[in-house]
Amino acid sequence: MVANGVSDSVNGPQASCSPLSLENINPKVVQAQYAVRGEIVIRAKELEDKLHDGEKLPFDKVLYCNIGNPQQLGQHPVTFYRQVLALCDYPELMDNAQAQNIFPSDVIARAKKYLAAIPGGTGAYSDSRGAMVLRQDIAKGIEERDGYPCDPDNLFLTDGASQGVHSMMRLLLRNEKDCILTPIPQYPLYSATLTLYGGELLPYYLHEETGWSLDINELREQTYKARSEGKSVRGLVVINPGNPTGQILSYENQVDVVKFCKEEGIALLADEVYQANIYRPDKAFTSFKKVLCDLKEKEVTLASMMSISKGFYGECGRRGGYTELVNLDPKVLAEVYKLASINLCSNVNGQICMALVMNPPKEGDPSYKLYAEERNELLASLKRRAVKLHKTLSALQGVTCTEPEGALYAMPHIRLPQGAIEAAKKVGKAPDFFYCMQLLEETGIVTVPGSGFKQEEGTYHFRTTFLIPEPETDEVAERLVKFHNSFLAKYGEPEQ
Amino acid sequence: MVANGVSDSVNGPQASCSPLSLENINPKVVQAQYAVRGEIVIRAKELEDKLHDGEKLPFDKVLYCNIGNPQQLGQHPVTFYRQVLALCDYPELMDNAQAQNIFPSDVIARAKKYLAAIPGGTGAYSDSRGAMVLRQDIAKGIEERDGYPCDPDNLFLTDGASQGVHSMMRLLLRNEKDCILTPIPQYPLYSATLTLYGGELLPYYLHEETGWSLDINELREQTYKARSEGKSVRGLVVINPGNPTGQILSYENQVDVVKFCKEEGIALLADEVYQANIYRPDKAFTSFKKVLCDLKEKEVTLASMMSISKGFYGECGRRGGYTELVNLDPKVLAEVYKLASINLCSNVNGQICMALVMNPPKEGDPSYKLYAEERNELLASLKRRAVKLHKTLSALQGVTCTEPEGALYAMPHIRLPQGAIEAAKKVGKAPDFFYCMQLLEETGIVTVPGSGFKQEEGTYHFRTTFLIPEPETDEVAERLVKFHNSFLAKYGEPEQ
Repeated sequence: MVANGVSDSVNGPQASCSPLSLENINPKVVQAQYAVRGEIVIRAKELEDKLHDGEKLPFDKVLYCNIGNPQQLGQHPVTFYRQVLALCDYPELMDNAQAQNIFPSDVIARAKKYLAAIPGGTGAYSDSRGAMVLRQDIAKGIEERDGYPCDPDNLFLTDGASQGVHSMMRLLLRNEKDCILTPIPQYPLYSATLTLYGGELLPYYLHEETGWSLDINELREQTYKARSEGKSVRGLVVINPGNPTGQILSYENQVDVVKFCKEEGIALLADEVYQANIYRPDKAFTSFKKVLCDLKEKEVTLASMMSISKGFYGECGRRGGYTELVNLDPKVLAEVYKLASINLCSNVNGQICMALVMNPPKEGDPSYKLYAEERNELLASLKRRAVKLHKTLSALQGVTCTEPEGALYAMPHIRLPQGAIEAAKKVGKAPDFFYCMQLLEETGIVTVPGSGFKQEEGTYHFRTTFLIPEPETDEVAERLVKFHNSFLAKYGEPEQ
Repeated sequence: MVANGVSDSVNGPQASCSPLSLENINPKVVQAQYAVRGEIVIRAKELEDKLHDGEKLPFDKVLYCNIGNPQQLGQHPVTFYRQVLALCDYPELMDNAQAQNIFPSDVIARAKKYLAAIPGGTGAYSDSRGAMVLRQDIAKGIEERDGYPCDPDNLFLTDGASQGVHSMMRLLLRNEKDCILTPIPQYPLYSATLTLYGGELLPYYLHEETGWSLDINELREQTYKARSEGKSVRGLVVINPGNPTGQILSYENQVDVVKFCKEEGIALLADEVYQANIYRPDKAFTSFKKVLCDLKEKEVTLASMMSISKGFYGECGRRGGYTELVNLDPKVLAEVYKLASINLCSNVNGQICMALVMNPPKEGDPSYKLYAEERNELLASLKRRAVKLHKTLSALQGVTCTEPEGALYAMPHIRLPQGAIEAAKKVGKAPDFFYCMQLLEETGIVTVPGSGFKQEEGTYHFRTTFLIPEPETDEVAERLVKFHNSFLAKYGEPEQ
């Protein structure tokens, strides 16, 4: 290995590569947008740093309502999960006499069960689909939820549900003529991955005036229109409960969605990560897997995606999730397995947490009482905060807000004064971005403008979580009202 | 939300989508190959199930030597890491008087430091690049390693190094004319991601006869040839220490690589995940970051990738890693940040472990003694096993094997009898695949055929880890020798 050949280069053709720049990297990367963590969040971090350095701002704390990240805002984790996880990462604790006084026996039993069945525990690559014992526990939870069997070999554990969406987009999209029907407003992971994988977002609008309802006719119209333009509709994304919109689909609506997919030969991508976040006593979550089984449907391919990041548990940083694939050709299933293998496996700690979420302590187990208390209080608190936020937003001048039935967000519709719309245009920003940025600058509240989710032309919204801790909600509501009123005072009355 | 519109469908155009099949999914997915977890591993799992069901096979245990996954084979994790991780996942332990007797004070201090600086701890999404306090600790480790500054904002924490490779491929590859110079033999993540992201693998051959050396002239020749065909060379992958080949680059060779990248305007992708696996006292690992800094090089873009899965620690299942980006246009860096944001963040447990790997206990810390003992024994054992395996392989008839200087693998060159080559062709398999599959069936030893890594035309190899626990190595060596001899007895003498 000598330092040879360097002088030869002068004889070679000129280098065809310039230093990497926005002009010569993959243009799809440049085009992709992800508003949940965009310019407003970057500005929020700057403001947080200023506060940290002692600078005086109109607020003393930045409040991240842009993202469903409850533990960042102080939510306490579910004790049972964390106890099992700690034992799995440091099994010596189980052999320690003192530790046995700290951990309930079912926690120890669960950790022992998992460690016995996962060679190498949390420190070893598992099967690329996830460790079998964990997929079995998740399958059991799915069976209890739906009343139908679940094959663990149809489950793929992922680093959060986002990875499942990436895999499905990679699988389905072949070229720029391939489209995915996507709700508008949508969670921007879908628009971002559609851009990255080179497909087209085929929009269907949720109808705000009827509680963000999904109209099957519109799915059909968009599909036929796309086909008449030579495009191929490869999949339909349904987010239920809705993100950013918070609605829960009716069973009848879900049946129609499945029938539509069957008639049109379209794969159904069901984003069901908010399945544990239901706030209306008259509404219930039904999985698309159950609907398929009820209908004895054997043709419609379903990818049902779930996450440990949402629900009442909110274990976002752990990055756990699963995709259940139903009615998929075994040869294609083998390709999904191969795709998973290229990434080796998802993180085992997150895999374990996903199994704990789907198979929690049962009545009679030593951990059950505390688990149930924590779960009930977290869900009740989320509901109280949803109601309060909805009330605050609805009372703002020029604002209407659909009541959140599920998920973690409110999506108020804001009528902006003409003066604000013009001021926004002057600085080259969307009007709702302009509103949200001023909201941040004056109150420290971080939200996501509706334009980040896409929305009906000429309407403006923003999305906010209802995850601010309860003791602070009154004060935050006051700040919001005060800001809104001063915004209107500055830019004029909103037009109706 | 009424069940409307279903009957309209008969009026619409015919569904243009058939059920998903190998024929209509993304062909790049079908084309991508990943031999480390391919057909042989699937067969190994079947055999393992048979053993589990009590079936009699020529062996009583499947030995996974196909993948660097030491804890799966019984390697004990580093205690310090696991103690900090357990406390971070279940912080209540720290307040427990009994637990304070279990954990050394520096473990508690480290967990407290991280939890204080990460809002929401392991349960919250962090900054998409990784939590700042962890990036700072990693930067400190890099500075100590190289003697040059490291900016935490150039670090991106990833779910294993694989995710970093995905990001770089996504960033660099625009169309099928874009190539990445890749060593042959290579780690198949590179060929797989090149296929998935639609670029071309531009091969440069490592020279086995000179210890798998890297020849700069060949890089240059391949580059000029590709350019003359209208292709664009976007990056150069260097794996150091080598995988699957185990060689360590000389400093002079590294300097030449950097000069080549500069002259040709090519980004350098340095896979340095085996930097802690060095077995020759006369060899040392030097990072490409240090080489760049030594040369005061400000133009060559470098992505240096690191992982918690390798080294002596082998925390594979945790999925932690980082990419350090050097000399990258800040606007492009912002795009990498945006890409990371679309996936929210890597798992925080893996992030913490990456920080612990790069910033371990120091002399004088309460945990230092045990940490140093564990590290030294693990590295010494790896070295003993490397030496023994190399000796066993070199003694086989028709086999030569370059001594592994680093990493976790041996890559013996096997001369196969003509009879075996023909028998393989008859069943439509590569000859080394044929050998490895028989090795599995008769001994339970799982290896990866050289064809999975690509290799010089007409040569045959396989890759095996040297991770079998020491008490079993003699027996495994015996099985291997016995198999090899019976294979030759069956198919004839190898031709030289």
